[in-house]
Amino acid sequence: MSSSTVITNIATLVTNDPSFGWEGSPLGLVRDAAVVIDGDRIAWTGESSKAPATDNRVDAGGRAVLPGFVDSHSHLVFAGDRTQEFNARMSGRSYTAGGIRTTVAATRAASDADLEANLAHYLAEALRQGTTTFETKSGYGLTVEDEARALRIAARHTDEVTYLGAHIVPPDHADDPAAYVALVTGEMLDACAPHARWIDVFCEKGAFDGDQARAILTAGKAKGLHPRIHANQLSYGPGVQLAVELDAASADHCTHLTDDDVDALANSATVATLLPGAEFSTRAQWPDARRLLDAGVTVALSTDCNPGSSFTSSVPFCIALAVRDMRMTPDEAVWSATAGGAAALRRTDIGRLTPGARADLTLLDAPSHVHLAYRPGVPLVAGVWRRGVRVV
Amino acid sequence: MSSSTVITNIATLVTNDPSFGWEGSPLGLVRDAAVVIDGDRIAWTGESSKAPATDNRVDAGGRAVLPGFVDSHSHLVFAGDRTQEFNARMSGRSYTAGGIRTTVAATRAASDADLEANLAHYLAEALRQGTTTFETKSGYGLTVEDEARALRIAARHTDEVTYLGAHIVPPDHADDPAAYVALVTGEMLDACAPHARWIDVFCEKGAFDGDQARAILTAGKAKGLHPRIHANQLSYGPGVQLAVELDAASADHCTHLTDDDVDALANSATVATLLPGAEFSTRAQWPDARRLLDAGVTVALSTDCNPGSSFTSSVPFCIALAVRDMRMTPDEAVWSATAGGAAALRRTDIGRLTPGARADLTLLDAPSHVHLAYRPGVPLVAGVWRRGVRVV
Ligand SMILES: [Zn+2]
Ligand SMILES: [Zn+2]
Repeated sequence: MSSSTVITNIATLVTNDPSFGWEGSPLGLVRDAAVVIDGDRIAWTGESSKAPATDNRVDAGGRAVLPGFVDSHSHLVFAGDRTQEFNARMSGRSYTAGGIRTTVAATRAASDADLEANLAHYLAEALRQGTTTFETKSGYGLTVEDEARALRIAARHTDEVTYLGAHIVPPDHADDPAAYVALVTGEMLDACAPHARWIDVFCEKGAFDGDQARAILTAGKAKGLHPRIHANQLSYGPGVQLAVELDAASADHCTHLTDDDVDALANSATVATLLPGAEFSTRAQWPDARRLLDAGVTVALSTDCNPGSSFTSSVPFCIALAVRDMRMTPDEAVWSATAGGAAALRRTDIGRLTPGARADLTLLDAPSHVHLAYRPGVPLVAGVWRRGVRVV
Repeated sequence: MSSSTVITNIATLVTNDPSFGWEGSPLGLVRDAAVVIDGDRIAWTGESSKAPATDNRVDAGGRAVLPGFVDSHSHLVFAGDRTQEFNARMSGRSYTAGGIRTTVAATRAASDADLEANLAHYLAEALRQGTTTFETKSGYGLTVEDEARALRIAARHTDEVTYLGAHIVPPDHADDPAAYVALVTGEMLDACAPHARWIDVFCEKGAFDGDQARAILTAGKAKGLHPRIHANQLSYGPGVQLAVELDAASADHCTHLTDDDVDALANSATVATLLPGAEFSTRAQWPDARRLLDAGVTVALSTDCNPGSSFTSSVPFCIALAVRDMRMTPDEAVWSATAGGAAALRRTDIGRLTPGARADLTLLDAPSHVHLAYRPGVPLVAGVWRRGVRVV
């Protein structure tokens, strides 16, 4: 029999539950609130004074509680890091960077145990920062064997596993990209599909064009994988339109968008996932979050954690950037990092604190969620519950 | 008798000790290094294989060790916060902000115990992020009694206490600023000088002009306080030149500088302290760190932690901003946050790991100090020693 716990004395509770009213915020805010957890689920939320009786009681000490962050875009099955490349780029020194290829070589050379230990390290780090659900991708193996092993390892740590054989055309196929697409949609797909929920493609000049991306995602759908797509990051292109055409759960990056792209997203179930860590770490142009939100697009906010272009695992940091540099309000940014991430994974059981939802919660050392932007860089996460169990 | 401890298996050791050679970095880097602590002091640094015998041994696990951060500019004796003001500013909503006055009113109304508990809270938070020395200021009391009590409270937690009665002209003196300057240089100074090492003034349009600032700092010097100055933050002005004229330890902010200002700093012992948290949180123009460094100015990097314009206590966050947005190299930013902060406090016993220096060290969960910029927002501090005692 499961036991019930009330977390009480919560100054600000973010529920993302519309039944608490809008009042200028999408967050379903409750002040002087309590949450009841029963087993691994949320049983009740509301004002402290109305909380039902429970077996156990936790005092939040006048601090804020929100849903655990849903980080719907990361690349964490890798080996090595790219410190020298980053240091050279930021120091204005020339450096013959191998880019993704450096990570591919290190990942292929690593043992299963090393890859898994590395993944576990970054996941634990993310959990301490309040991330209770994460998606992660293959994409640094780029052989049948290496992609399948990345997904097997990832699947031991999360349900949200994405096959990204189409990350780049690997050097060994550089003179025959069509053959690589055939591999990604054929033998590699067969080996990978059993371990993944999602299929993704990096649709960009120098990676995969619109036709290749369509072929890859369509093949994945036929094998029961649902599409998501790296779209319009470095330049204008067909990625976003393709995402909408194929009902992808998410178009990720969305930095270079035409009005037609924005319209397409607004009239679709495809979420625009913004990844400001990438723009921060590469000094690139910020995505225009305001334009997307004002057009009615659903926006998610994630880390893109990877050793090349965005080596942050910190959703709070991404929230601070989204507010400062992408002109999201603090409330919008928090919504996008919780309910938005859930929408980008087509999930309704996470990213919200509603009766029946998973009891994934983050306690902040601050009286409100606004402090995630107001106090940038400060590790404010003081407690984390996942599936009803306190883990931080 | 003090006991000795060796920290060994350090992948990258930042000593800031020029005797280890320059090699393109000011950090005195040692690879595969060890540090010996004897009592509260550094006894030895060098390659692991050459470390002398000690009583105790700590394995750094192939991670990086650097001097504890020296945060030479903060405003931590305050009450209340300004969440609503921040939220409105970032959400584009109008808000009748009281600005500093809001904090002054809350600080005056707070009990000594509340002010001290608040200070201790933020200092503990900073310590967990690797800050082992901090300067902090009065400036939210603005009466003889309230300024003196702020300094008494601060002095219980740090030696680096700054009297900032000249933060703004308080509302109760709005129609007679000269009388307030007389108070700051007279009765208030008498009450405050015994509790402080430094005197500071906010030299800016709308606060104190050059002549007022000179009178205030000169009066402080006559009472044995050493000057530092909030200079050239919001506009061009006389602050930096005045800092050099009076041999201030530091000119802080330095956002709007003429060529003459830069020359004056370069030919002085006055440090330029940059505070990127303020530009981040107010969406202001970044100081041009590159111009200062290329001119030979000594640059420090600090948080400016305060509830109005920069509510971050995170030196690692400021390092990441300095690299991304102020074009400092990772090595320069780390130097500025350690040895640079020490220089801004005219200290040579901190900010470096040299024999005889205070044993204030930070252990990172990363193989190098570059990761402070490469992994923005991630709480990388895995251990902190202060005066030879492990405190985190
Ligand atoms: Zn990605
Ligand atoms: Zn200041």
